[in-house]
Amino acid sequence: MIEIDPERLIGNLRKLSEFGRCGTGVHRTAFSDEDLAARNWLSDKLAAAGLGVEMDGFGNVIGRGASRSGPHVLVGSHTDTVPRGGWLDGALGVIYGLELAQAIADVGEPDLARVDVISFQDEEGTYFSCLGSRSFVGELSEADLDAARNAAGERLRDVLARRSMNAGQRLRLDPGQYSAYLEAHIEQGPLLEAEGVPIGIVTGIVGIRRFRVTVSGQADHAGTTPMRMRRDAGRALLTLANRLNACFETDANPNTVWNFGSISFKPGAPNVVPAEAELMVEFRDVDASVLDRFEARLHEVCTPRQGQMPVEVGVTTLANEPPTLMDESIAKAAEHAARSLAAASRRMPSGAGHDAMVIGRHVPTGMIFVPSIGGRSHDISESTHEADIVRGCRVLAATLSQLLN
Amino acid sequence: MIEIDPERLIGNLRKLSEFGRCGTGVHRTAFSDEDLAARNWLSDKLAAAGLGVEMDGFGNVIGRGASRSGPHVLVGSHTDTVPRGGWLDGALGVIYGLELAQAIADVGEPDLARVDVISFQDEEGTYFSCLGSRSFVGELSEADLDAARNAAGERLRDVLARRSMNAGQRLRLDPGQYSAYLEAHIEQGPLLEAEGVPIGIVTGIVGIRRFRVTVSGQADHAGTTPMRMRRDAGRALLTLANRLNACFETDANPNTVWNFGSISFKPGAPNVVPAEAELMVEFRDVDASVLDRFEARLHEVCTPRQGQMPVEVGVTTLANEPPTLMDESIAKAAEHAARSLAAASRRMPSGAGHDAMVIGRHVPTGMIFVPSIGGRSHDISESTHEADIVRGCRVLAATLSQLLN
Repeated sequence: MIEIDPERLIGNLRKLSEFGRCGTGVHRTAFSDEDLAARNWLSDKLAAAGLGVEMDGFGNVIGRGASRSGPHVLVGSHTDTVPRGGWLDGALGVIYGLELAQAIADVGEPDLARVDVISFQDEEGTYFSCLGSRSFVGELSEADLDAARNAAGERLRDVLARRSMNAGQRLRLDPGQYSAYLEAHIEQGPLLEAEGVPIGIVTGIVGIRRFRVTVSGQADHAGTTPMRMRRDAGRALLTLANRLNACFETDANPNTVWNFGSISFKPGAPNVVPAEAELMVEFRDVDASVLDRFEARLHEVCTPRQGQMPVEVGVTTLANEPPTLMDESIAKAAEHAARSLAAASRRMPSGAGHDAMVIGRHVPTGMIFVPSIGGRSHDISESTHEADIVRGCRVLAATLSQLLN
Repeated sequence: MIEIDPERLIGNLRKLSEFGRCGTGVHRTAFSDEDLAARNWLSDKLAAAGLGVEMDGFGNVIGRGASRSGPHVLVGSHTDTVPRGGWLDGALGVIYGLELAQAIADVGEPDLARVDVISFQDEEGTYFSCLGSRSFVGELSEADLDAARNAAGERLRDVLARRSMNAGQRLRLDPGQYSAYLEAHIEQGPLLEAEGVPIGIVTGIVGIRRFRVTVSGQADHAGTTPMRMRRDAGRALLTLANRLNACFETDANPNTVWNFGSISFKPGAPNVVPAEAELMVEFRDVDASVLDRFEARLHEVCTPRQGQMPVEVGVTTLANEPPTLMDESIAKAAEHAARSLAAASRRMPSGAGHDAMVIGRHVPTGMIFVPSIGGRSHDISESTHEADIVRGCRVLAATLSQLLN
């Protein structure tokens, strides 16, 4: 039985949140001074818990348990944040890992020292989304590195040079090294709080498909051009968007989500019939067959029959991320762990990307969620009640116990 | 019988188009060097046709027929253009007036000299829409003048000072001075060309109502927020826009037009549920009761029943221009004139604003349209076949003859 220390856990989370503090949140973007200082602090804490610590040329930090008997379990997440982000996104999963290592050290049983703790670099994509975990599993190419730059256009290569960081020196996953990767995270959505369920057992990380729909018509004077003689890109797009939404409502599974996040008409004057119209469409599901169905509907709706609409419609794929399923036996272990602690749990997909999405392609992976207050995240208002934070760590500890046995 | 000279007519139109020539079009915005030079040229031509010419402090040019027996007929339009505009928008109606004055001088019958010709200043609203005609009828306030500025922010007051033009010196309409105002114009739409009808008899100038519809919801992560828990301003607006369009299609008269010219979602990222959404809606008709019906529908659709949509919807009025009906007896005279010349004609509204909209509130007014090639205008591609230009002038001459008798 691994017994966590709630006070130490919360204390370490609070301590970490001091690096880049920003009101009630944290501004600790990847490769910033605050990010690297936090990674050094973490390294010291892991070493003090008896782990063998290494930081690689990207700032990925790993602490390795001392035991050499059999495969280890890797526990972690990331310590970088979005600009003006929250104190728990990423941090929670890493500090849970630290707490588990400290709790194991407290027990003093050498066979339990089969837990490694990791903080991946730049999960949030300040330069390149999931940079650290992609590098760890060998999915980061030199071309990716060449292309990586921040919103201000600064190249990651230049940042590494300025920081004297050596991108050639990398932590790498060895096949068979780990029996499992465990990542705990805040939900970043409103579901657990709304349902009063403290633990989410993640079934998978959704695949994302993102498209740009463009409609081309003709700009005309909106006073002098009779309705029947218009080639109105705007009204055509409004019709298509509503048809799409109706199809999606029919075809969706309970967990499917979709979004029309951006729309524009050009030239965009109130008295000019729109010549061009553009809509961003994305949808997410853990089930690739749902994504296929939605995509087929999109192409169907956006291919109006000859003569049905006096405009041209185009669809461009902007992103196509496949879903990553979580490991079923780990999910069962987490469910069992929650039950043993009298904590209600529910299965749910993760609608956002995580390092677990990358690691899960190579190592059996499990994720648990704790509730986000008001569903908020990626903002300084992000938080989770302390009782939920502690409960989540206990469930992770109980899950780990099963995996180590 | 007033006999026009087709060669002189086309020659004067071509000559005027040299002031500010811009490819196949004209760039002669109000108060530019080219605009003022064209107004001086016009003054000379009107004087040479025996008219008493005056230019006021805005550059409004009037030429008055010599006869003092009874009310005159005022004929004209404007000689300023939009930036990079066409050679006929405005110019046509003014040069028709010049041609009629010249043709009357050719006849040499003193009693016919009851035609005044006018070119109003800044119909296109470089500084203030219909500046000249509004000033002429006394609808331009000092506050309007204070507010008048161009797209670059230059104040009209400053331009007048720089040009040593005296805004206090104004041409003003005297009550009873005119029995009619006649304005010929290019259609600026595709209808006459498409139907093969060379003459449009304008029934009225449409009223315009313009609104901003705003929807407020909540920004959420488009991956982690279940569909049923969203307050999605974007999808709500798409639904409202389509309902509106369906209502408008049902409620419209054959000539009613409406436009959704501009739309936006905020924050506008593909992976964020829109918190704010905005749509520009305008509709036009010569019949105020249609405008009332449309506006009632707008408010109806944008007041969703309690609990029907988890968003707030607001409607702001941006413009409310009443329709101006043209004089029925003048329209009948123009119809008769067209028939007498074996030219087909059709009644139609003007979907765009004209000086006739302003003058028509004070003097019985008639407008005729000639076809626009491809419906184009406000662009250097604007044109009309010479045969149509000549025919239009002949119809205007025959109309005038009836009004003078």
